[in-house]
Amino acid sequence: MQLELENLKFTLHNTDLQSKARAGTIVTDHGTIETPIFMPVGTVASVKGVHQKELREEVNPDIILGNTYHLFLRPKTEILKKAGGLHKFMGWDRNILTDSGGYQVYSLSANRKIKEEGVKFKSHIDGSMHLFTPENVMEIQRVIGADIIMAFDECTPYPCDYNYAKRSMHMTHRWLDRCINHLEKTPFEYDYEQTFFPIVQGSTYKDLRRQSAEYIANAGAEGNAIGGLSVGEPAEEMYGMTEVVCEILPEDKPRYLMGVGTPINILENIALGIDMFDCVMPTRNARNGMLFTAHGTINIKNKKWEDDFSPIDEMGTTFVDHEYSKAYLRHLFAANEYLGKQIATIHNLGFYMWLVREARKHIIAGDFRAWKDIMVKQMDKRL
Amino acid sequence: MQLELENLKFTLHNTDLQSKARAGTIVTDHGTIETPIFMPVGTVASVKGVHQKELREEVNPDIILGNTYHLFLRPKTEILKKAGGLHKFMGWDRNILTDSGGYQVYSLSANRKIKEEGVKFKSHIDGSMHLFTPENVMEIQRVIGADIIMAFDECTPYPCDYNYAKRSMHMTHRWLDRCINHLEKTPFEYDYEQTFFPIVQGSTYKDLRRQSAEYIANAGAEGNAIGGLSVGEPAEEMYGMTEVVCEILPEDKPRYLMGVGTPINILENIALGIDMFDCVMPTRNARNGMLFTAHGTINIKNKKWEDDFSPIDEMGTTFVDHEYSKAYLRHLFAANEYLGKQIATIHNLGFYMWLVREARKHIIAGDFRAWKDIMVKQMDKRL
Ligand SMILES: [Zn+2]
Ligand SMILES: [Zn+2]
Repeated sequence: MQLELENLKFTLHNTDLQSKARAGTIVTDHGTIETPIFMPVGTVASVKGVHQKELREEVNPDIILGNTYHLFLRPKTEILKKAGGLHKFMGWDRNILTDSGGYQVYSLSANRKIKEEGVKFKSHIDGSMHLFTPENVMEIQRVIGADIIMAFDECTPYPCDYNYAKRSMHMTHRWLDRCINHLEKTPFEYDYEQTFFPIVQGSTYKDLRRQSAEYIANAGAEGNAIGGLSVGEPAEEMYGMTEVVCEILPEDKPRYLMGVGTPINILENIALGIDMFDCVMPTRNARNGMLFTAHGTINIKNKKWEDDFSPIDEMGTTFVDHEYSKAYLRHLFAANEYLGKQIATIHNLGFYMWLVREARKHIIAGDFRAWKDIMVKQMDKRL
Repeated sequence: MQLELENLKFTLHNTDLQSKARAGTIVTDHGTIETPIFMPVGTVASVKGVHQKELREEVNPDIILGNTYHLFLRPKTEILKKAGGLHKFMGWDRNILTDSGGYQVYSLSANRKIKEEGVKFKSHIDGSMHLFTPENVMEIQRVIGADIIMAFDECTPYPCDYNYAKRSMHMTHRWLDRCINHLEKTPFEYDYEQTFFPIVQGSTYKDLRRQSAEYIANAGAEGNAIGGLSVGEPAEEMYGMTEVVCEILPEDKPRYLMGVGTPINILENIALGIDMFDCVMPTRNARNGMLFTAHGTINIKNKKWEDDFSPIDEMGTTFVDHEYSKAYLRHLFAANEYLGKQIATIHNLGFYMWLVREARKHIIAGDFRAWKDIMVKQMDKRL
């Protein structure tokens, strides 16, 4: 199966000489995305605890991610269609990418049954039964209306038996063909275009990853994704898989590593040729009081911050970093005040955006590798 | 007992001819407060779910309220002292008023014992035992450092036996003398002044209210408060008490009605001569999905808003009113996303501020009474 859509323009500006890191630009109908990019996760039409205005003005990402599984259950596609799509519904006029719902079906819903036809699952909200197929997930993503939409795949757990991983990968490939077939029959829902990304699977087996990367590369999509990583495997295994896959995926198309990861994971994978990332870690960990900084992580709940009236992060790029002190933020967590989670979330997202933007600058300047090595050491500390 | 402090300047600009409504100005070391004013409640050094920046720029109150009981337990006065007071700790450089902790001791803590000396109580957080006396509550409020601090009183419940109400009122009066005595021996903690307000009690008995108002007026404070209302009594009883008390409290000092109330309660009490209000209603009800508007209340959780893509409040003064739709806000509540509470809180606080500012405009313009009567009817609707 080969795609014939070409709705997204990717330009590669610089490639690092000491690594495979790349700086590029993606242009869609909702604007320009400078890569490498991190996409904040807006699960159910909201980046938890963050106003769209703050996301735009303080975090300032070119693109965010929405979860098809969550949006399908709430507010439901019918409402999104009436609203004119997710952009209008939530008031976000930059880029959006939606996953295919696969990952959440496997991780959140009870009683899911995976068959060749698709996945039958029980809603984690009200217990209602639903069926996701490659075909209806494409239709749902047309209605949600993200700029980049993802193939419906099976995301295997870690560890995964070789034979299961192999069978699952081939099913993901057959599902990909069905996705492409169906997309070609399904017109855009709104007055802008959508770009489809297929997903490489193959668990932690290099031969399967190579095989899958070749299959996916052959689809000729405008961008390609790597799934099934960051599911519990050691970081070294993740990097090994990224490396073999990036050797095969076309250079002139953006590469998206799904669900990754820590700030260190992100820099290491940029070094291996990845352009796009998403992860719940900055937002979820923020809600638990964990802050990422250029000098290491902070557990703001620790008593040691109780009377530290210095700003949250002197180097921080958002207003929260300078307006609030560590002692105040620690107090908000101790008192279980939601404002604490809001502040930590904006800080962490601001830091992730700073990190990928800074990576881009160093790729363009030609000293990415040296900078990356210093940052990886620094960020490994606990403050 | 007579106070000799004079740290607050109150200027009365206009008095309505058809009611007792007044427009004035209070000036303290932290700036000007235009009255009538509503004070958003920042319980434990945070207006729940609202960034200080949003409070400043969107809600824009001249003064907020902090709760001595909550701040005493968390972050504790020791931390507030090290921070240089609550203003610095939370990053709020406009006015702050603290209550005396009395109300929370009676309503939140388990095992409280009220004696002449003071109130022994068990923390609702960790079960630790504490004693609040008129003296130590004055010291705590010096350390917290609000611009306006309140007398330690007993807030009687509703309904309240006449004899209990009478005994309690006299104890509140004796406690007032102890507060004033002790304050005169307790210097300001920081480089700005604080003003002390005594509190009228007397439950729902007009004779007791008159007696208490006379005692409180005699203290010669720079402002006076009415406590023990909005505790479950019918609105008409509340208005009756406000009326008899306002006849006695000096005209040239601001009058603060504690813990009141609905938008309608606020307008009716402005008409009776009240200048200052605080209440958790706009913030607490917001978190339950109830929005106040000039045309009535909205329960945003209702299914009827599911596909209403109009702005939250066309007349609203904050960014949330125009940026988000009713359908989107309804979705956030349905999906239990905290952003919903954040949006509703900013809306309701913005509406309360609009209401008191608009009341002030109409007092100055001379048509307050007619405007108030229309608004009271309008706001009584459910949309
Ligand atoms: Zn295959
Ligand atoms: Zn008395």
